[in-house]
Amino acid sequence: MKASQTFISTLKEAPADAEIVSHKLMMRAGMIKRLGAGIYNYMPMGLRVIRKVEAIIREEMNRAGAVELLMPVVQPAELWMETGRFQAYGPELLRVKDRHDRDFVIQPTSEEVITDIARQELRSYKQLPRTFYHVQTKFRDERRPRFGVMRGREFTMKDAYSFDRDKASALKSYDTMYRAYCAIFDRFGLTYRAVAADTGAIGGDASHEFQVIADTGEDAIVYCPTSDYAANIELAEAVSLIAERAAPAQALAKTPTPGKSTCEDVAALLGLPLANTVKSLVLATDEKDEAGDIVKTTVWLLLVRGDHALNEVKTGKLPGLKSGFRFATIAEIEDHFGCKPGYLGPIGLKKPVKVVADRTVANMSDFVCGANEPDFHIAGVNWGRDLPEPDFVADIRNVVAGDPSPDGQGVLAIQRGIEVGHVFYLGTKKYSVPMGATFLDENGKPQPFEMGCYGIGVTRILGAAIEQNHDERGIVWPDAIAPFTVAVCPIGYDRSAEVKTAADQLHDELVALGIDVVLDDRGERPGAMFADWELIGVPHRVVISDRGLKAGTVEVQGRRETAANTVPLAEAVAFVKGRLKA
Amino acid sequence: MKASQTFISTLKEAPADAEIVSHKLMMRAGMIKRLGAGIYNYMPMGLRVIRKVEAIIREEMNRAGAVELLMPVVQPAELWMETGRFQAYGPELLRVKDRHDRDFVIQPTSEEVITDIARQELRSYKQLPRTFYHVQTKFRDERRPRFGVMRGREFTMKDAYSFDRDKASALKSYDTMYRAYCAIFDRFGLTYRAVAADTGAIGGDASHEFQVIADTGEDAIVYCPTSDYAANIELAEAVSLIAERAAPAQALAKTPTPGKSTCEDVAALLGLPLANTVKSLVLATDEKDEAGDIVKTTVWLLLVRGDHALNEVKTGKLPGLKSGFRFATIAEIEDHFGCKPGYLGPIGLKKPVKVVADRTVANMSDFVCGANEPDFHIAGVNWGRDLPEPDFVADIRNVVAGDPSPDGQGVLAIQRGIEVGHVFYLGTKKYSVPMGATFLDENGKPQPFEMGCYGIGVTRILGAAIEQNHDERGIVWPDAIAPFTVAVCPIGYDRSAEVKTAADQLHDELVALGIDVVLDDRGERPGAMFADWELIGVPHRVVISDRGLKAGTVEVQGRRETAANTVPLAEAVAFVKGRLKA
Repeated sequence: MKASQTFISTLKEAPADAEIVSHKLMMRAGMIKRLGAGIYNYMPMGLRVIRKVEAIIREEMNRAGAVELLMPVVQPAELWMETGRFQAYGPELLRVKDRHDRDFVIQPTSEEVITDIARQELRSYKQLPRTFYHVQTKFRDERRPRFGVMRGREFTMKDAYSFDRDKASALKSYDTMYRAYCAIFDRFGLTYRAVAADTGAIGGDASHEFQVIADTGEDAIVYCPTSDYAANIELAEAVSLIAERAAPAQALAKTPTPGKSTCEDVAALLGLPLANTVKSLVLATDEKDEAGDIVKTTVWLLLVRGDHALNEVKTGKLPGLKSGFRFATIAEIEDHFGCKPGYLGPIGLKKPVKVVADRTVANMSDFVCGANEPDFHIAGVNWGRDLPEPDFVADIRNVVAGDPSPDGQGVLAIQRGIEVGHVFYLGTKKYSVPMGATFLDENGKPQPFEMGCYGIGVTRILGAAIEQNHDERGIVWPDAIAPFTVAVCPIGYDRSAEVKTAADQLHDELVALGIDVVLDDRGERPGAMFADWELIGVPHRVVISDRGLKAGTVEVQGRRETAANTVPLAEAVAFVKGRLKA
Repeated sequence: MKASQTFISTLKEAPADAEIVSHKLMMRAGMIKRLGAGIYNYMPMGLRVIRKVEAIIREEMNRAGAVELLMPVVQPAELWMETGRFQAYGPELLRVKDRHDRDFVIQPTSEEVITDIARQELRSYKQLPRTFYHVQTKFRDERRPRFGVMRGREFTMKDAYSFDRDKASALKSYDTMYRAYCAIFDRFGLTYRAVAADTGAIGGDASHEFQVIADTGEDAIVYCPTSDYAANIELAEAVSLIAERAAPAQALAKTPTPGKSTCEDVAALLGLPLANTVKSLVLATDEKDEAGDIVKTTVWLLLVRGDHALNEVKTGKLPGLKSGFRFATIAEIEDHFGCKPGYLGPIGLKKPVKVVADRTVANMSDFVCGANEPDFHIAGVNWGRDLPEPDFVADIRNVVAGDPSPDGQGVLAIQRGIEVGHVFYLGTKKYSVPMGATFLDENGKPQPFEMGCYGIGVTRILGAAIEQNHDERGIVWPDAIAPFTVAVCPIGYDRSAEVKTAADQLHDELVALGIDVVLDDRGERPGAMFADWELIGVPHRVVISDRGLKAGTVEVQGRRETAANTVPLAEAVAFVKGRLKA
């Protein structure tokens, strides 16, 4: 294609509201154009990337046996009421009334609609397993849309849904999708990790996020470089860092620590390692009667080592806490500990408090904690000798880099990632049972579908790919999803017949090989022309000039290369082709 | 592709709410599935057709130099307020408020958004002409959605918009799109007509509808078989059927016509041709003051020949009527004519009435009209002798088959059509001027864009194609947009190794040629298998059976053919390929 046949519009400066590099670069490269908060026009350069992303997704979904259909953007609320999501979904769900005052939603996902299709179309176990997908516009009315396509309101998502006769088969469908996702992200040419993820309120035991690795990512990913262990930090298991509790060696010593309310300050004051201290966090759970009034409140003391952080997701799975907890109020803390926060500890408790020690804390000896008295801590504290054993010992902390991998195969590292895909085993409780979506088994008995759902944020891929692949000059697209694979940049296209002939011929030959090439016929000066294609991020560039042609050569340069390769004109097509990812 | 890899779900009976054949067949063939009133899921067979339609549209739009982008479904109302459409658009416009109570619309078209893009991106005359398009989900909240995809609420439309520096250039862009549309509809393989259409309130002088010809079409298309004249009946010009007014031959004769209130009844009673009678229709126009109160009402008497029908669109273009008219009330009629409808005429009027005679009526002599007295008509009426000449003579009737073509090249015929595309020259008044969308001309002076808009109803194409191409067994898709081009139907695929081998090989060879083929591996009985593919409308079928293979042959049958062609197996691929439209 010639550049004049498409629309190129680059900016020197990004608009002020663009906070992150991908947003800035997409605006500057003319890939998106803001229409409203979190709502973007996809301009020709951006749309070309979207179409390549979608094409790869479709090919791999089809290869995995999933069948494409298309569900509407505007969906009747009745279906969403069947699962209770119409009521339970927050203001992110855009609700709309039609001219007859009937309720509709602008779809954020399509579980209800696909389950409605399944309960009508999949009548027998003989029709299972079955996975459907679509690529469709979604809307989530984010409270604070930002970061361009990373947290927009209108976006494109590929969402797939599997229907199976039993859990074993559902997990097979899940695995098929997991492998399709790996193939998709491999083909994108992005560095990514599939990490075990929290299954949230739904439960079940299979959920993986596909995270594109980028320093700017919102999510912390835990992985073991010497094994295949990888998990979202919310889920990653933290083992005890102390194999066995040592015998007490110190006597209890109450110590004044005036104004030192953090473990760091106390350790510094006492000249002790931070790892000798224990941090106290106070939670509360409320039991309610049928009217919703609180009839009983339980206070919980959670203990993690001074250098560790509480993991609220793992904490929320403990018996007694999994129905929901909150942080205790100052009044509740003072009532139970006789002391304000900053000097709390598990020792000398007067009122009933459930004590949960992290696995590491449970094995500590001679540790330091708050004295439950303002401006005092106690050192040389030992379980059993100075205070009762904790009520519960559990994994309630975030892992840190250097922790042993829970699979015993090495030590953990942490990197940042951007979630762009999610595969999820749903089971039967969330959609098929409430919607009465059943099939007839071999005995003619109705059974609810075992379901799974599988999403890829199509437009989000663009932002994630750029966060991972950019430099000071602009975007560096992987070959597979670049708006163009090759930019042919003739110098003097409009004034040198030799340059024009060579450029046109190279363009035509690359096109004939099925290579997505753009020939810059706009007549820009070389500097502006190169800057545009570097900003837009085309991964391969061929420069054709009179000077080069006199020597019978052109210059081929990869977007990440610092210097060009001088290549005989006659070999240019083969040279370029040889550099492309298959 | 094997049939088991997609999803085929046919029905013996169409649901009761499917009123027209395309709706019934799309439901029965499993192409669409109703989700709500006018809202459909596109099932795999239907989506395959949509994708082929979209691909052809994209290829031809790109070839014509239009550039694809993607504008959002959910659009801020502010832009729609700039043109006044937010207020003026009826309840068909789905309006929605976000969590911050800001107004949005679900787009029915995208003129405002593209004009907003143009006023930011197209700054100089050097960037013009420019045509953008997108293929996107639309929503129109029809009062009474019906006929499946023909009048749905959510649908897919390709909409393009051109921006030009002046009218001459805009009409060139218009012509380029007109020709692209012809190429698109040619490639679809549908019989269609591009007909001149009414430009409505916008004015301007270029508007064509692309009508797929079908007996069930809503629109009447007027055309001249011996010239290229074609127009929507709303616009088609009706010439006078009487070249010159003859001299009066009869005396006035007031005749009792008790209970005969139609021209047909009067002509029958008097034993005269219907073409001797004149039909009277009474309209009214209201002048309003600034507060919107009516300050003056004018009554109009419109006269068409007894066998003709009033054309309200053409009538609405007359001076004095083009600001809007209504049919007069019974009270107004009795006040002005002293008589109720059924016996009205232009003769002996006591109160001021503006008389508009159709061109043919103005040349009639010795005609029959109402006497403005209940149960009486007058025969032998002549202009000038018995009553004043009409205030206006104008083209106010629908043409009828057999009328002379207005280009003088033959006589007109009428057929029915379904509007699936529309090209429209917009000018500057509707969007660029109210939105302040300007570019700088050679003198650095801002000028409003001359615009055009161009739509194709992507999903509607499916319905129109089926209305045109079906029989009692189902749909008959043209090759280019069929869900599959060829169905390979093996008899005994699961029990005959020979059949399986031959079918697999034929499938693979056709696929290798780029032919979209489905191999039916479902194990259905031949009758059910054939019925499915006939209902779905695959245009070519190859049947492979043990009996045929024994003779070294297969059976190839076109969907419209009544008998199969017996073809040697070795020649089957070439034979099938030879039958396909290029």
